[in-house]
Formats: sequence, structure tokens, C-alpha cells
Amino acid sequence: MRANYKLQRLFIDAPLAADAMVETSREQAHYLTHVLRMREGAEVLLFNGRDGEWYAELAEAGRKSVRLRVTRQARPQTPVPDLLYCFAPLKKGRLDYLVQKAVEMGAGCLQPVITQHTQVAKAATARLEANVMEAAEQCGILAIPAVREPVRLDSLLEGWEPDRRLIFCDEDAATNNPMQALSGIKERKIGLLVGPEGGFSDAERAQLRARPFVTAIPLGPRILRADTAAVAALAVIQATVGDWG
Amino acid sequence: MRANYKLQRLFIDAPLAADAMVETSREQAHYLTHVLRMREGAEVLLFNGRDGEWYAELAEAGRKSVRLRVTRQARPQTPVPDLLYCFAPLKKGRLDYLVQKAVEMGAGCLQPVITQHTQVAKAATARLEANVMEAAEQCGILAIPAVREPVRLDSLLEGWEPDRRLIFCDEDAATNNPMQALSGIKERKIGLLVGPEGGFSDAERAQLRARPFVTAIPLGPRILRADTAAVAALAVIQATVGDWG
Repeated sequence: MRANYKLQRLFIDAPLAADAMVETSREQAHYLTHVLRMREGAEVLLFNGRDGEWYAELAEAGRKSVRLRVTRQARPQTPVPDLLYCFAPLKKGRLDYLVQKAVEMGAGCLQPVITQHTQVAKAATARLEANVMEAAEQCGILAIPAVREPVRLDSLLEGWEPDRRLIFCDEDAATNNPMQALSGIKERKIGLLVGPEGGFSDAERAQLRARPFVTAIPLGPRILRADTAAVAALAVIQATVGDWG
Repeated sequence: MRANYKLQRLFIDAPLAADAMVETSREQAHYLTHVLRMREGAEVLLFNGRDGEWYAELAEAGRKSVRLRVTRQARPQTPVPDLLYCFAPLKKGRLDYLVQKAVEMGAGCLQPVITQHTQVAKAATARLEANVMEAAEQCGILAIPAVREPVRLDSLLEGWEPDRRLIFCDEDAATNNPMQALSGIKERKIGLLVGPEGGFSDAERAQLRARPFVTAIPLGPRILRADTAAVAALAVIQATVGDWG
């Protein structure tokens, strides 16, 4: 759970291998040399989403970019978790949080979904991707989750892979405990659908429950905000049918 | 999970019973009459932390306060969950979030704990209490968690009730899955200890593990930020030994 790396960790979109020379973006260069005041020889960690994590040394600090010499591998690449995270976009601050938390908790792919009570019609993909990257940099993630274009709920269900179990949080479930429903899941491919602050409409809940690939889970006796429900659902899913096992 | 009540929900520090007349604070009066533009006869929900939740009607709107007539009970009082939530204070924004989420997830009492790597020496109790109240108002909580004064970790452990199981999140656990450790817990009184962003020191972890009332749990293979770990831990605890059962 230690989120503070001793070394600064940077995403670099270039091949990483021993002795490779790579160049930072202008923003990264500014951050390394002006904010962190790093000098030549200083060590950082690099990842690119495909070659694992590497140590690198600051080789040359220019005004517009910094050149880094890749030295040795810190960790091998890990696969993207096969967990499709479907969510109704929330308002800005909470949406940033929702996306960062999903990445920390092991979402493999992020799918914005427009539902009836969704208050935010457009979720800027670039902003979602920036939040994915921030969480990946800070939390030691090696495989960077993809962000898909928003779809409507009915399209999502129409195009759903039949061998992927879709879990959704249902405030009208008969019990309070999600464990029984989760323990019955046989699929290894999982999706989670988190609704908007206003919840799903009755018609949407009926539509979801009618699909053979859908499992509804409760999350206790209290009302949870959508972003809290998201983290709580990811925790119980990962601990039962996900990659904490 | 529906967080948006149709009716405005207010905390009122006065006895609630049928036909009682109660008065709002100045801030609440402003919010009801100027922000929500409520008129006489409009309906709200009231709670005071001890008499359950009640419907009330706006009876008289003055400039400094609004008088409300309590009509009928909406829900009976529920007890405070017996879950002691111990946490190292984080920086402001994240601390607000941490406290609100803890209340939503069923913490019964909040205990700030100063650890070696805690970056925030003082957690203003008034601010913590304001966050508790905000979460309680928004999330339909009836029993309001108490906020204790900060203590040092060693004092917390010295004064610990021996029949309360203390769970802490340990990044150095041997497995990734918390379920096995949680399933071994027999106590009904539970405490959760969430560390600071920098984690616990080695000495603190050793000190915790040496206590017979402590259970260390892992939370998966990824690094989690402290506030994410808190919600994830509360979810798996509530689903196994807490009040989701």
C-alpha cells in the first residue's frame, strides 16, 4: 500500500531496454529539473506500458527535454487485468477520483456508459486518459488501462461478450451482502457497471436483470455515493473472483 | 446506493417527535429559503442522531432561522456500528474524503492516530466533525459517528480493549488476499487501522504484529493510496465480519 516511491516514476512512450537513451516531454523536463531540481546522474524509474519498469539516469538536462539513459530493469511487464470497468461519468472532481481509484484497484479497461440519470453527457477522453496515467505513475501500475469512447447502456448490453460476467451494484437487492452472489460466479472475464449518483432507473435495472450474463450485488445497508460504491465493489470483486486470489 | 434524496435532509440538534416545532441554524435557513427557495409547507427530512428520521414541514421562514413542524417518523433510529476506524491524518483534501468515505462505509467512531510517517500532525477535530456531518446528511446515516482526539500509535495500542480485533493493512503480507485472514476473526468488536501515505515504519509493523489482538491483511498485488486502501479494507471487512452480513 506504500504509494510514495523513493524514486520519481515517469511514463515514457519509447522502447525501454538496457542502455537505451530516451527523451522526456517538455512538462516532464520542467518537473525533473525545476520542481525536483534533479542533476545529471540522478536516478528515476521509467515505464512505457509494455517493457516493464526500468531504472534510468539523468544523462543530459536541456531546456526543452531531458535525456535519460536506461540502466537495468526493475520489474518485468505484467499483463493488463481482464476487468472491464463500466461507469456513468460523474461531475469533474468525482470523475477524476473515480478513474484514478479504478486504475489503482485493477481495472483493465475503462468504458464510460451513458445511462438515463447520467448527469454528465460528455466525458472528455483526454481527461480520463490523463487521470489513468496519473494513477499509473503514482501507484506502480505497469500495464496502462485503455479508455474507450462513451456508449449508451443499451448498446453496451447489445454488444456484450456472453462469456464475460457483468456485475452491477443494485440498491434494491434482497440481502445486504455481496459475497453469496459473487461466490456463484464461474466466469474469469469480469465486468463491473457503476451507475450515476442518481442510480439506475427502474427500466434500466429490469433491462440489466433480464440478461443472463448479469449478476446484481448489494453493498450493505447504507446508501453509498457512486464513487464509494465503485471502490467497495472493486474490493469485494477482486477479493473473490479477481486477481487478489 | 442512491445518494440523491428527493427531500432535503437536515441535522437538527433538538428532540424530534410528532408535532414538535424545531428551529434551523442561520446557515440552514439561508440554504432552505435562498438556495433551495423553499416556501411554507415545503417538506424536508430531519435527524438528530438519536430519534430516527422525521418528515417536517416548513412552518415559518424568518431571516435568521426557519421554524419547522415535525410531522411523522420516516425511519426509526439505528445504533452506531461498532466499528472503530483508526486513521493517520492525510493532507486536507484527502482527509476530508477519507472521513466522508469512512462514515458512508459504516465507521462508528473515528480515531485519528499519529504514526511515524504521518505528515499531518494536527487534524482539526471541528473539520473532521463537519465532514462526518456532511456524509451523514447526504448518505442517510442516522447514528452520527463520534470523533476522538488524536493519539499516538503506541498509546492507542496500550489502551486497546483486548476483546476488539484490530485489523491493519500490511503491504508486506505473504499473500494478496485478505479473505483468509478475515475468515479467522471471531470477535464481533472490530477496529481498522489505516496508515499514512508513507505506510507504517518497520518498527510500527513489528509492534502491531506482536499484539495478540491484531490481524494484518493484504489488499491485492497493487500499491494503493491510503484513502483507497481505507475504502477497500472497509468493504472486505463489512462483507465478512461487519454489518453487511
